[in-house]
Amino acid sequence: MTGTVAKPIIGIIGTGAIGGFYGMMLARAGFDVHFLLRSEFCAVAERGLQLDSAVHGALTLNPVQAYSAAKDMPPCDWLLVGAKTTSNADLAPAIVQAAAPGARVLLLQNGLDVEDSLRELLPDSLHILGGLCYICVHRAGPGVITHQALGKVQVGYHSGPAVGEQARVSIADEGTRLFQAAGIDANSMPDVQEARWQKLVWNIPYNGLSVLLGASTAPLMADTDSRELIKALMAEVVEGAIACGHQVPPGYAESLFAMTEKMPDYWPSMYHDFLGKRPLELAAIYARPLAAAKAAGCQMPRIEALYRSLSFIDRRNA
Amino acid sequence: MTGTVAKPIIGIIGTGAIGGFYGMMLARAGFDVHFLLRSEFCAVAERGLQLDSAVHGALTLNPVQAYSAAKDMPPCDWLLVGAKTTSNADLAPAIVQAAAPGARVLLLQNGLDVEDSLRELLPDSLHILGGLCYICVHRAGPGVITHQALGKVQVGYHSGPAVGEQARVSIADEGTRLFQAAGIDANSMPDVQEARWQKLVWNIPYNGLSVLLGASTAPLMADTDSRELIKALMAEVVEGAIACGHQVPPGYAESLFAMTEKMPDYWPSMYHDFLGKRPLELAAIYARPLAAAKAAGCQMPRIEALYRSLSFIDRRNA
Repeated sequence: MTGTVAKPIIGIIGTGAIGGFYGMMLARAGFDVHFLLRSEFCAVAERGLQLDSAVHGALTLNPVQAYSAAKDMPPCDWLLVGAKTTSNADLAPAIVQAAAPGARVLLLQNGLDVEDSLRELLPDSLHILGGLCYICVHRAGPGVITHQALGKVQVGYHSGPAVGEQARVSIADEGTRLFQAAGIDANSMPDVQEARWQKLVWNIPYNGLSVLLGASTAPLMADTDSRELIKALMAEVVEGAIACGHQVPPGYAESLFAMTEKMPDYWPSMYHDFLGKRPLELAAIYARPLAAAKAAGCQMPRIEALYRSLSFIDRRNA
Repeated sequence: MTGTVAKPIIGIIGTGAIGGFYGMMLARAGFDVHFLLRSEFCAVAERGLQLDSAVHGALTLNPVQAYSAAKDMPPCDWLLVGAKTTSNADLAPAIVQAAAPGARVLLLQNGLDVEDSLRELLPDSLHILGGLCYICVHRAGPGVITHQALGKVQVGYHSGPAVGEQARVSIADEGTRLFQAAGIDANSMPDVQEARWQKLVWNIPYNGLSVLLGASTAPLMADTDSRELIKALMAEVVEGAIACGHQVPPGYAESLFAMTEKMPDYWPSMYHDFLGKRPLELAAIYARPLAAAKAAGCQMPRIEALYRSLSFIDRRNA
């Protein structure tokens, strides 16, 4: 025992706003970070990554260890997946190519059961974890990321070789310490499903209403009717979570509501997807929670109405 | 008794799509019809009224007995109010000026309790009736009306000097016969509130969703998610009506749904109001039914979510 541990090699699968932000923060902290890119590979290889953060200041990473193909990446101990949930199944080959033996694959994504479509496509030897990011960040251009506020990550173990509660928590704690070492608030969750339900208390109202009403958080929080609608949607998510056997701390929805009032004006990621004519993450954020709650005997009628409306909009936007 | 009855003098208060259509049909049938106009007075006085009807063909009425002030109108036995419910209280002085003693004031409007704001502003000697129009009609330009399909009117007595069920039904029947004499399908309803609730089964889904989703009936009826949402909203209206003590015939919602599938593609009136940046009829079509159902112990959560969303949109559109 020397007391020193080799720093893990980290791979970023999908270098958008989320992958880019956390990858740059980890690189700044001295981690060996490798970025997989698609459409923005050339821009990032030439000009590097730029972060304009209201919390951490301006950062530039140049040169970037950037790759256009996963097979060229070194074997990574941690893989942080920041791509959209709508493409999880397509990412499996890249993850397998970039993973070191026993790698931890952390999905920094919103929604429920996002790990499941990936689990059956990955070898049993890889760990899958879920990560919930409480952050206001968006991609301002190729390789350019704007970070407006917050940044906390919650990490929970999903599936893989770790057997038993202790082993699962231990690997989640490893992930938590990575973020903490990069100056980011983070904590482990014993149950990733519970963490995902809790995050839905924010995502279900704000992501959907940003598209449905064409409004960012500030106007949504300034209008008496949208405020009541947000509260009612949050209450339905909490009911759904509890029906599914999860804990939601008392006052949790109220605290997210209050947090959003203090946030800078923010366009949720679903609105950016809508504007970019990309498919909306409706399965992960709406359809699966609705199905899970229904199976547990819980109706979430306002969420269902929102989901139906968004499905109509998504199909027209395609 | 001679068997002949003098034809009543009819006044149209608010010559938009509804008032213009029924007024022209009555004039064509030989009734003495007088039209009150505001912004379109000059256009109609110069060029008359035009109707392009898919059912009745092309009609022109020129010259028109057109007025820019109610005080210039002859005393009318029947006043048909086709203006928006959002301006009912403002219309009271014009109605009083144009009304013959004992006149019947028929509100050809959607929504609940639209008679109430007017009742307290009119003398007790005037009868108020409600009329529900099942029709696809819109204003195509100043004095120009396009009639796409349907046309049926349901008439019910609301309040006034008629005492007892028989007297109330008798006056509603008078109104029904006016429309029938003009070649329009019409029937009397014993309870105008019940008729209004039944009409809401159509208005609540289609008016709101046309604004919320920017879609006319054809695309709304072609998408699997909007179809399910429409059915769910209709079911909530039926529950609300029953909770408030009204009858809704079995299969009523299904018949309106099927009727809409057969209709030509149609933009409901609320969408035209939205486009024209006029206030939406949210109080009559949403807020009052929600309050009435709630008072009867019935939640209509999807309708409430729709109402909150529309309120946000309406305020932004002002």
